[in-house]
Amino acid sequence: MNSTMQKISIEKVKESKIDQVDFNNLAFGSVFTDHMLVCDYKNGAWETPKVVPYQPISLDPSAKIFHYGQSIFEGMKAYKDTDEKVWLFRPLDNHKRLNISAKRMSIPEIPEEFFMEGLKTLLEVEDKWIPQTEGSSMYIRPFMFASGNGFHASPANAYKFMICLAPSGAYFSGKVKVLIEEKYSRSANGGVGYAKTGGNYAGQFYPTQLAVEKGYNQVIWTDDHSHEYIEEAGAMNIFIRINDTLITGPTSDRILDGITRKSILQLAEKKGIATEVRKITVTEVVEAAKNGSLKEMFGAGTAAVVSPISAFGYRDVDYDLPELEDSYASQIKKDITDIQYNRSEDPFGWRVGL
Amino acid sequence: MNSTMQKISIEKVKESKIDQVDFNNLAFGSVFTDHMLVCDYKNGAWETPKVVPYQPISLDPSAKIFHYGQSIFEGMKAYKDTDEKVWLFRPLDNHKRLNISAKRMSIPEIPEEFFMEGLKTLLEVEDKWIPQTEGSSMYIRPFMFASGNGFHASPANAYKFMICLAPSGAYFSGKVKVLIEEKYSRSANGGVGYAKTGGNYAGQFYPTQLAVEKGYNQVIWTDDHSHEYIEEAGAMNIFIRINDTLITGPTSDRILDGITRKSILQLAEKKGIATEVRKITVTEVVEAAKNGSLKEMFGAGTAAVVSPISAFGYRDVDYDLPELEDSYASQIKKDITDIQYNRSEDPFGWRVGL
Ligand SMILES: Cc1ncc(COP(=O)(O)O)c(C=O)c1O
Ligand SMILES: Cc1ncc(COP(=O)(O)O)c(C=O)c1O
Repeated sequence: MNSTMQKISIEKVKESKIDQVDFNNLAFGSVFTDHMLVCDYKNGAWETPKVVPYQPISLDPSAKIFHYGQSIFEGMKAYKDTDEKVWLFRPLDNHKRLNISAKRMSIPEIPEEFFMEGLKTLLEVEDKWIPQTEGSSMYIRPFMFASGNGFHASPANAYKFMICLAPSGAYFSGKVKVLIEEKYSRSANGGVGYAKTGGNYAGQFYPTQLAVEKGYNQVIWTDDHSHEYIEEAGAMNIFIRINDTLITGPTSDRILDGITRKSILQLAEKKGIATEVRKITVTEVVEAAKNGSLKEMFGAGTAAVVSPISAFGYRDVDYDLPELEDSYASQIKKDITDIQYNRSEDPFGWRVGL
Repeated sequence: MNSTMQKISIEKVKESKIDQVDFNNLAFGSVFTDHMLVCDYKNGAWETPKVVPYQPISLDPSAKIFHYGQSIFEGMKAYKDTDEKVWLFRPLDNHKRLNISAKRMSIPEIPEEFFMEGLKTLLEVEDKWIPQTEGSSMYIRPFMFASGNGFHASPANAYKFMICLAPSGAYFSGKVKVLIEEKYSRSANGGVGYAKTGGNYAGQFYPTQLAVEKGYNQVIWTDDHSHEYIEEAGAMNIFIRINDTLITGPTSDRILDGITRKSILQLAEKKGIATEVRKITVTEVVEAAKNGSLKEMFGAGTAAVVSPISAFGYRDVDYDLPELEDSYASQIKKDITDIQYNRSEDPFGWRVGL
């Protein structure tokens, strides 16, 4: 059966709750707008999405989301410029990645039109909610999950695709101190690490809690076999600057192919920063920290943007990173957010106006 | 805060739907009883469980179950004997394993009393629903998931523990043909493979679908590094009989520690069957198939009980297993179900009356 889209219907709330929100003190992802987008998959096809008031979802206790983890999501942002115009950043890449995740998790793919039209319609309805405050943006959460029923461990026959919006401030507050993990792992070869699926996050919580108890904010994952290769962080890819070269690991079936990561690689090259995409060993990073050639480490992701790492821990030793003026991280953060907020030219064609 | 349990309240349905059920033609896990058990975790403590009519669950769209995969479950069965007395099989082991899964997924553990009293109360209410038909039983699904809200990728602050019941027939119908998987993997070293968490199942669906398209019913997982060691199947541990020795792989952080598996090891030893718990390589199994020493392979799990494997595929070759009279699988299946249905002595003390 084919999914064909009709006009998206809009059911508005009687009264907006926007007045209850302090836009100058936004946390990350904890305030939601008045409406949401819902789209049902039934009988082998996606139905036309609808914009409806933000409201609870009602599901049978046997819905497979509760039992078998068929869930995927994306993380995007909408940015409002000083002319109140709204911009998205490489949204088609999020659509593409959502469908890559969908395939791996046996969830039906969603057509581009459903995703893009649904997103734009919802953002237009919620325009007033998109923050203009410096450092804030509209965090966008598209997600899909198994709503079909039954305890047989097999793919569901019904799914929901939804988009919710959360005007948000910074993801991290303060310096980020990371722990290089050697016992726990995030993903397996031939596993689902490259998919943005719920289980990849739940699996990180316990090791991350253990790291937090030791005074770190985040875990840096290594490969599950040798624990010698740096992979990525909880919700960020990792960049390492040794001398003047910016290095990041190659993507694989264990690592999320981050949109910020690949944008940074292009940006850095354009700026004339030498980049390398290659495997990085923990040994190399520790050596570089010891001999002073390790200049920077930072995480990169939609939620955290560019997050400088102030120190990393490895085998009970903490290695502090220098505080540089005009670091690559700060330069790149400025460049990428300037593009995102329409404060600069966009030579790459990444910005998409609403 | 401490979780202290009051008396479990029972709210009954006005009208039972039991008359709509054909108990002679039960599928697996697709018919649910009139009531369910619900228990909420809030403000750092579990509230007293309640038995309520089976009904939809209502959750905020930002509930973490939809985004970050914090979900775990158990699979158990209740058996009715010819005197209408109801039996559970090693239920404390399921409670223990649920809490092992909980810990790994940063979900609060549930006290034994909440689990056991909740389960017994629900089963008493639903006594009429417990099938007595040969080959049928009451499949019991305890599960826990994150009901707390927010898009920050961190553990939720609220959870639900629930138990639903599904009178069920056989999990597999017919012969089980398996494919030894060399590309995809189920779990990582240091990962969550030993936890009964949703994501472990969703991750198997796509590779299993590919195997089904090639004519197999199930995938046999191997380790994610060398793909040389036999691990387990989708929802079963694996036993291999070479000559007269029954072999199963050791458990690890990649493999679910099955209650059926460990019961079979004890049963077999008691019967005088030689058992070995050790790593088994694919090479060894293929060699044994070729030289005729491979006598049996079977899966073992609560849902599938003991499921003989009729053939396995490896690198595009299918290896048929002999059809034995009085196979270990059939002997052991008889022994274990005789204990479960109270048709024999229970020298191990596994059976627990309601
Ligand atoms: C595991 C993981 N790695 C990396 C990233 C960064 O990806 P992106 O830059 O596309 O947001 C994210 C967040 O989306 C993530 O969840
Ligand atoms: C992955 C997996 N392995 C093995 C088993 C068998 O475990 P048990 O015998 O406790 O049911 C199950 C099912 O519960 C399972 O899901």
